[in-house]
Amino acid sequence: MVRFASRMSQMKASEIREILKITARPEVISFAGGLPAPEVFPVEEMKIVSAAVLDEIGGEALQYSTTEGYDPLRAQIAARMNARAGTSVTPDNILVTTGSQQALDFCGKLFLDEGDRVLCESPTYLAAISAFRAYQPRLMGVPTDEDGMIPDALEQILRTTNAVKFIYVIPDFQNPTGRTWSLERRRALMALAETYGVPVVEDNPYGELRFEGEALPSLKSMDTKGLVIYVSTFSKTFCPGLRIGWLAADQPIFRNFVLIKQGADLHTSSISQREISRFLDLYDYDANIAKITTVYHKRRDAMIAAMDMYFPEGVSHTRPQGGLFLWATLPSYIKSVELLKHCLAHNVAFVPGDAFFPDSTVTNTLRLNYSNMPEDRIAEGIKRMAAAIREYSNQSLRGF
Amino acid sequence: MVRFASRMSQMKASEIREILKITARPEVISFAGGLPAPEVFPVEEMKIVSAAVLDEIGGEALQYSTTEGYDPLRAQIAARMNARAGTSVTPDNILVTTGSQQALDFCGKLFLDEGDRVLCESPTYLAAISAFRAYQPRLMGVPTDEDGMIPDALEQILRTTNAVKFIYVIPDFQNPTGRTWSLERRRALMALAETYGVPVVEDNPYGELRFEGEALPSLKSMDTKGLVIYVSTFSKTFCPGLRIGWLAADQPIFRNFVLIKQGADLHTSSISQREISRFLDLYDYDANIAKITTVYHKRRDAMIAAMDMYFPEGVSHTRPQGGLFLWATLPSYIKSVELLKHCLAHNVAFVPGDAFFPDSTVTNTLRLNYSNMPEDRIAEGIKRMAAAIREYSNQSLRGF
Repeated sequence: MVRFASRMSQMKASEIREILKITARPEVISFAGGLPAPEVFPVEEMKIVSAAVLDEIGGEALQYSTTEGYDPLRAQIAARMNARAGTSVTPDNILVTTGSQQALDFCGKLFLDEGDRVLCESPTYLAAISAFRAYQPRLMGVPTDEDGMIPDALEQILRTTNAVKFIYVIPDFQNPTGRTWSLERRRALMALAETYGVPVVEDNPYGELRFEGEALPSLKSMDTKGLVIYVSTFSKTFCPGLRIGWLAADQPIFRNFVLIKQGADLHTSSISQREISRFLDLYDYDANIAKITTVYHKRRDAMIAAMDMYFPEGVSHTRPQGGLFLWATLPSYIKSVELLKHCLAHNVAFVPGDAFFPDSTVTNTLRLNYSNMPEDRIAEGIKRMAAAIREYSNQSLRGF
Repeated sequence: MVRFASRMSQMKASEIREILKITARPEVISFAGGLPAPEVFPVEEMKIVSAAVLDEIGGEALQYSTTEGYDPLRAQIAARMNARAGTSVTPDNILVTTGSQQALDFCGKLFLDEGDRVLCESPTYLAAISAFRAYQPRLMGVPTDEDGMIPDALEQILRTTNAVKFIYVIPDFQNPTGRTWSLERRRALMALAETYGVPVVEDNPYGELRFEGEALPSLKSMDTKGLVIYVSTFSKTFCPGLRIGWLAADQPIFRNFVLIKQGADLHTSSISQREISRFLDLYDYDANIAKITTVYHKRRDAMIAAMDMYFPEGVSHTRPQGGLFLWATLPSYIKSVELLKHCLAHNVAFVPGDAFFPDSTVTNTLRLNYSNMPEDRIAEGIKRMAAAIREYSNQSLRGF
């Protein structure tokens, strides 16, 4: 009998991916995914930079390269972070990763022995939970409201819990809720992290996709003790298919990540790194982001307008100022896993919120993605959902 | 104080990478690396396939894609394996990975709890050791000769050792030695693996780079019980910078690798997979390999001719029939780590063999790479090494 490692008993197929398989039928309007809109990918520009890199660099662009990443790209990432996220990192702080998912996996690998604690928002990003679970920690959800983790609750946990190895947060346009942490909560988190000497993983894939309100300082910009590992990606502001992300960290954390990267995949694609670097040289990245946010802004508006028009009383939702997702809370008698079955019968899909809660049972929430669908389809999908909710409610009430 | 996972105490910088930093000076002739020759990378063809993919597929080529890999590429890999490695795998057995290094990391993640045993050749591939070490196994070198692991020694270990989770081998043109397992030894290994129910990781990055002799059947082709995980890559037969490798495995092993891949980096580059697939459609892959092997064959010949001409008595070496490396054994009074210092003074470099032995101390071996250097430089480098060996020997003899 082949015997697997004990970690495999905790790893299971992503529920979202299972739902996505069901919803691949063209007649289904699916808010279940999390895909960027491919029509805003810079396809023509990619053709130009890809040819330019091969013309000018030749075979070296296809050769093995350094584990840390392509130096000009590391410098561009650092400069952009400093300009946009208020940090003061140097190129030496940047490790290019195979998507930001790899950076999350590396955080688990660097810090976690079996039974160690990771604190996270509740709800939090599902694929981060998957990444960390491979290292068999105990995930603890910290009570979280509209403005972020509640500091008193966080302090209570830090004061009484051993083996908290890091705190994982998504302060900007969180996945799954779309919420953004207030400045006060950011400061409170950093004060506690410094007091207790606990590293913070700041996952920021969506921060640049703001379509209203003002940007708030990143946690990394408040980091005076080298405790914050900032994780981001080109997947949402450029395109995800290249699998190029990065992390920014200080020593000694950084050098350990490099060792992990060597063992994990040696380095990230030489040519894709050069292509993105060339794109940043030749084109206006902010204009590319503006193109994306204009599209997502309209789609968010269309989704909220449709929800406000069609959804019955008692369904509340977030109003994200950026990003790809919003979050709805149903009346407590509705189980969103059951609602999904009704919705699929109406050819519309979403992700039940249950799986996003690391260690608690919440059954009446759901995540909706608006980035990858035109406004009329969004309106039609929400209308179908509203019909499914009414159908479910009526059945439930009859059941009493 | 930031506290890392206990695994980090076992992870250290690759000694080869440290040597490579020293030898980056242009005046040094370095046999220390393991790079393919970039002049045989199909740069013009890459330009064509890259433009074709973007022209025809557009944004979808830059979108997220499935964890298992791009289906047409999986089918091409399976067909090629069946034609060349004598296997009978289907596309559903193929998981595309971010280089074969990622497949090795996944083997550690799938099978290893702390203290579990991995059996490997002695010496074996250094970066596999690094990948496995992250999961804190005990690595045990199995006595190995010119023809592969010695079956009696392997059986003795399997009979008496608990918790052997897998056997890791490179049967074709091994790194570091360049040796190829005999047919008899392949059969003996598979018989023992089946008797004891132990999975076998067959790492085969070089097998297609044969320039003399006849190809032998892969272990995967002899696998009747779904125990062999076959690992390979496009890095040596196409180009490494894209970071595209794969593994082939049967259920239930395969489905667990997919779970691991989801958590590790979601999927491998969408566009790079499509580019390789298009290359396989449009061009003659065997002709591309023939171009590479013609070059490496000449370089191996040049290295062996120079060693036979310049090296003093008492230095023996392998005569690989393919691949990128050969292996030399020095008189036992020579420590190759010390010899390296003499060589660096003569502006020539190699990798001391010490680090390739997983659990034993062998101090008089070294690995030489011949793939990435013209013949005249190879001859000159070997001449310099010979001078350094003589200098070292004379000093040592004076020391007696």
